[in-house]
Amino acid sequence: MNIYDIAELAGVSIATVSRVVNGSPRVSEKTKQKVLSIMEENHYTPNVFARGLGLDSMQTIGIVCPDVSDVYMARAVAFLERRLKEYGYDCILYCSGHDQEKKEKALELIMKKRIDALVLVGSTYAGYGSGDDSAEYIRKAAEKIPVFLINGKIIGDNIYSVYSMDEEAAYDVVSRMIESGRRRILFLTDSRSYSANKKLEGYERALKEHGLPVLGELKLYTRNRIHFVRDILLSRRTLVYDAVFATDDGLAVGAVKCANAKGIRIPEELCVVGYNNSEYSVCCEPELTTVDNTAEKLCNITIDNMMKLLKGEEVPADVPVECMLVKRCTTDF
Amino acid sequence: MNIYDIAELAGVSIATVSRVVNGSPRVSEKTKQKVLSIMEENHYTPNVFARGLGLDSMQTIGIVCPDVSDVYMARAVAFLERRLKEYGYDCILYCSGHDQEKKEKALELIMKKRIDALVLVGSTYAGYGSGDDSAEYIRKAAEKIPVFLINGKIIGDNIYSVYSMDEEAAYDVVSRMIESGRRRILFLTDSRSYSANKKLEGYERALKEHGLPVLGELKLYTRNRIHFVRDILLSRRTLVYDAVFATDDGLAVGAVKCANAKGIRIPEELCVVGYNNSEYSVCCEPELTTVDNTAEKLCNITIDNMMKLLKGEEVPADVPVECMLVKRCTTDF
Repeated sequence: MNIYDIAELAGVSIATVSRVVNGSPRVSEKTKQKVLSIMEENHYTPNVFARGLGLDSMQTIGIVCPDVSDVYMARAVAFLERRLKEYGYDCILYCSGHDQEKKEKALELIMKKRIDALVLVGSTYAGYGSGDDSAEYIRKAAEKIPVFLINGKIIGDNIYSVYSMDEEAAYDVVSRMIESGRRRILFLTDSRSYSANKKLEGYERALKEHGLPVLGELKLYTRNRIHFVRDILLSRRTLVYDAVFATDDGLAVGAVKCANAKGIRIPEELCVVGYNNSEYSVCCEPELTTVDNTAEKLCNITIDNMMKLLKGEEVPADVPVECMLVKRCTTDF
Repeated sequence: MNIYDIAELAGVSIATVSRVVNGSPRVSEKTKQKVLSIMEENHYTPNVFARGLGLDSMQTIGIVCPDVSDVYMARAVAFLERRLKEYGYDCILYCSGHDQEKKEKALELIMKKRIDALVLVGSTYAGYGSGDDSAEYIRKAAEKIPVFLINGKIIGDNIYSVYSMDEEAAYDVVSRMIESGRRRILFLTDSRSYSANKKLEGYERALKEHGLPVLGELKLYTRNRIHFVRDILLSRRTLVYDAVFATDDGLAVGAVKCANAKGIRIPEELCVVGYNNSEYSVCCEPELTTVDNTAEKLCNITIDNMMKLLKGEEVPADVPVECMLVKRCTTDF
């Protein structure tokens, strides 16, 4: 009989049992009594050493990301793995793809492993915003173990979201573009994820607050491959724009490539801002101004909070983190 | 009592027990008798369904790479994870760094997990060539479970190497450079790994066979960050070269950046070739000619052979795979 069995019998998460054992106030009296009575019935005495140290556990955390060959995801997984190792934890990695069905399957499979908590990397897991039920499978997983979301937000019991303030960052960038005289700003994205939608909201808010129209033709969804983006833009001969705000550096590089091919001067005739401050941003010519969403910070906060939670401490369910604009050569503000 | 226990008692690997159970000829008579007698002593009857299907196992493979935030490693891990999932296998990921001590520690830790086999990604695990004992810890791991090396070669029992033919690819590229009139070819690298040394051997062989001297000043070891490489090259004012052969695309982009900063025309005055055919090669301007070492192919062969081996089939200990030159705009051959 261990903490897993108690949690299962009580129909609560391990974190909740842990909280009861540690006398945390963040458990309802009803739940507390239920857990305690099941512990008593089963003669379960938490080992004084095990208590709070998770010694009942396999010291293993599940990490799920859509695609570890994506530069952003890969860096995040590396940061998470390193931080977990500092705490003596291992990780099991699953790549789920972006399809709803595959994401659900991946979670179903990884939940069969003996893991203490789950990290979902990337806002693809947060659904498309509020009101849709595409995150139900995540709420279900959170009934068993704590679930941490990196760069997405889901409200639910035992779900913890750490995310960058993308709406605010997008609003800031697009406002600067408008204030420096740009009027037709292309929103370039490869995703309809939580984070991409937040960037879109910031983009639209900046336009509206500056009295500019929000135009459907200036929102472009594309694949995130440099040559693909360049060719799409080259083929849109009647599309006029004097600025590009891209939700990822790779997309922004595609826009720079298109401008270079057409002989358009950057930043005089076209300004371009990317997102993520990846190595792509210094690879391209001219080098890219980009929003740094401080991925390392998001990952470290996630793991630090997870470790506190597994010890029965309280942690915030919602941690927004500020982004930072890194100015290089594709902007004049 | 399961296949793990039998293997431990007999002092052989699981793969060897599996081979005995499956009647593979690739086991010495002496080993076969030892395994069979231990199976008999312990009343171990391999389950007819489990036999060859690894049902005694946790269906989990350990993957160790130095740094999953490296683009090449990340893609390899993604390819491996995907292929393993197709076979119904999971993976546990460890990032070891490049230090000998840390690599040994990582292997020690992952070997405590219940894994059926181990994949080491990247030639850093292959030591610095023949004759050194830095690979002893890998041979030790291979006493317990099969070890697969991607892009490195270690000779030893239960060790399987799948690697790209880097010596030949480097020889081919440098020969083309010489034949197109280049005389001072810079060898740019960030590593003294097995694979980097193979590329160096190919570089030197091409110079020698074309009657050119091998010069120490034309071999440059640097960190693999684009701006760092550019600045190192800019600071070497007396270093003259008319071609760059880099062991990674990121390094090559640094050389292109340096040439752009100095107003040197590419490929007329300087030709540059990178390695790995990563997205960096189409990100930079002009776009990079690069060697594709077919990472996906290496990964798929590795997993396919591993699955055969775990079923008791025979697989080659040594699989060299040909590279491919992808011509873009930084060369004139």
